[in-house]
Amino acid sequence: MLKFDAQKQLDSVNGALALRGQIEKVVDEIQTTGFDTIYFFGIGGTWASCLQVEVYMRGKSAVSVAVENAAEFIVTGNRRFTDRSVVIFSSVTGSTKEIVGAVDKAKALGARVFGFVDAEGAPIVQKCDWCISYPANEQLKFFMVANRLMYNNGEFADYDRYNSEMEAYLAQALVDAAVQADPWAEKFAREKYAFLQEHPEMPHYFVGSGVQWGATYSYGMCYWEEQLWIRTRTVACQEFFHGMFEIVDANTPVTLFMGEDEQRPLAERVAAFLPKVCRNYVIIDTKDYALKGISPEFRGSISHLVMRAVNSRVDVHMEKELCHPLDIRRYYRQFEY
Amino acid sequence: MLKFDAQKQLDSVNGALALRGQIEKVVDEIQTTGFDTIYFFGIGGTWASCLQVEVYMRGKSAVSVAVENAAEFIVTGNRRFTDRSVVIFSSVTGSTKEIVGAVDKAKALGARVFGFVDAEGAPIVQKCDWCISYPANEQLKFFMVANRLMYNNGEFADYDRYNSEMEAYLAQALVDAAVQADPWAEKFAREKYAFLQEHPEMPHYFVGSGVQWGATYSYGMCYWEEQLWIRTRTVACQEFFHGMFEIVDANTPVTLFMGEDEQRPLAERVAAFLPKVCRNYVIIDTKDYALKGISPEFRGSISHLVMRAVNSRVDVHMEKELCHPLDIRRYYRQFEY
Repeated sequence: MLKFDAQKQLDSVNGALALRGQIEKVVDEIQTTGFDTIYFFGIGGTWASCLQVEVYMRGKSAVSVAVENAAEFIVTGNRRFTDRSVVIFSSVTGSTKEIVGAVDKAKALGARVFGFVDAEGAPIVQKCDWCISYPANEQLKFFMVANRLMYNNGEFADYDRYNSEMEAYLAQALVDAAVQADPWAEKFAREKYAFLQEHPEMPHYFVGSGVQWGATYSYGMCYWEEQLWIRTRTVACQEFFHGMFEIVDANTPVTLFMGEDEQRPLAERVAAFLPKVCRNYVIIDTKDYALKGISPEFRGSISHLVMRAVNSRVDVHMEKELCHPLDIRRYYRQFEY
Repeated sequence: MLKFDAQKQLDSVNGALALRGQIEKVVDEIQTTGFDTIYFFGIGGTWASCLQVEVYMRGKSAVSVAVENAAEFIVTGNRRFTDRSVVIFSSVTGSTKEIVGAVDKAKALGARVFGFVDAEGAPIVQKCDWCISYPANEQLKFFMVANRLMYNNGEFADYDRYNSEMEAYLAQALVDAAVQADPWAEKFAREKYAFLQEHPEMPHYFVGSGVQWGATYSYGMCYWEEQLWIRTRTVACQEFFHGMFEIVDANTPVTLFMGEDEQRPLAERVAAFLPKVCRNYVIIDTKDYALKGISPEFRGSISHLVMRAVNSRVDVHMEKELCHPLDIRRYYRQFEY
């Protein structure tokens, strides 16, 4: 398989899951000492991860959790944010200026900050009250925080069984999903290349909801727009029917992300509509992946990770088909702006 | 001026402003009787209006206010939503099925509901604890609620002066803005028509933040996509630099909405960036409109209304240039989906 190192993937996910003891210690301390609201801070792709953890908890938990876009927090702030608030964020480099500015503002207001900063030596690490440094797996780290918050709040009776399953099976299930998706992804990338030759300016539409909304939003923006330089337009399933769908016609390229959380019915409605007006749509459904060892009731909580595993294969094949290295940037961090 | 009835516009806005006594009575009762959180419910364009009122209050008010997408509330719910919660929504027909379903669910949970329903005879009116029926002006109604909430909470000392200015000058200021924008809008529509002949599949990019984000989101979706069938991609200024901007090149059509609230610096950053890489951008800046009689410190609270006045002229001219009546729909409410 092109650019695929199964062992590296297994080690990466298992290493993240092994952070559980450290994460639990921090979360327990936050809940023992008290807080008014926990704010997940992000920008761009990390903001999308914040949206995922918020919607994951929304229907299940009475813990007061909110999302702040770091750039907005700098200029607008939040009158309900206090010295009893807690900030949680994730950053690879720790140098993203909006994150640094928002953390500085939060600290100045007396809040406590829990960071996941991949780069151990980044100056922002010193500003955190708690910090864990381990590469990648941002979404998984956030959900581990969420699960512990809910467990401590009496909202996750199956916590131990859940973690046993994840620690035994998740990494392999994601590798298996990537392997299963690969031939499809190769074909999809080839067809997409051909389509782009005829329609270089046509945006590709990505649709998704629930924990898939963050996946949809960041996939369109951080992968196709930023890394592949392909036009996209992302929309949540619930919003699809309130304007956007009017410009879908027979040839419009649409990809629907279907997950398995409680917002799946919103995606099912889009899936039922698309064939009526469009012949150029694709559905990626996490239900098509076995996820061996994971109980049905837990699948919804990881379906965004399954989607990422599938799309990681699309990325590799798109990179090859388009002859466009994913790591080149026209503008991002190339000059001052 | 094409399809413009100044007196009708004046009467419409002044009529909405005259609802203040009724709105204050409801808001005072909500705050006197107590609540845990006020949830603004919406879907599509009305959801965008909810986002506007939330960001308007976020930096100024400690009143607990949140936004719920009606379709998400039906499937995910919100564990923090209780019988002490209050729902506020706006609907023209009162028949949007996501709104009806979400209000039913809220009522079943014991919450109180304050509706703005244009159609007095709609069945949903009977489900509301409070209802005000008056056509259009949704954003203005929501902001009148917000202003009273903040006044009662000791966060709006200038409330009386603010309302005096709005009631004396707002309607005329918006008519003046439309009149001033009209020649520009006519030219913009003509140029856009020509561009679309060469680039029928190219999405038009709309960028905005703060109270302009809701304006940006709904303008791209509810006007260009839904009413004009033109492809769009909307993005918040703060997110622009985290992926999306990589696909902007010299010929990419971008329109930036600049308002005058505290998020203006986010738009200024985009305005400074665009000329470096793009020659096909347009900036609509509410600062270019006099808004006679409105004090500088109040302009930010109405700049989304100014943007709407400007864009209402774009719509009229686009309709003419494209020979595409704004009220025809391919799919919306045309069949079951």
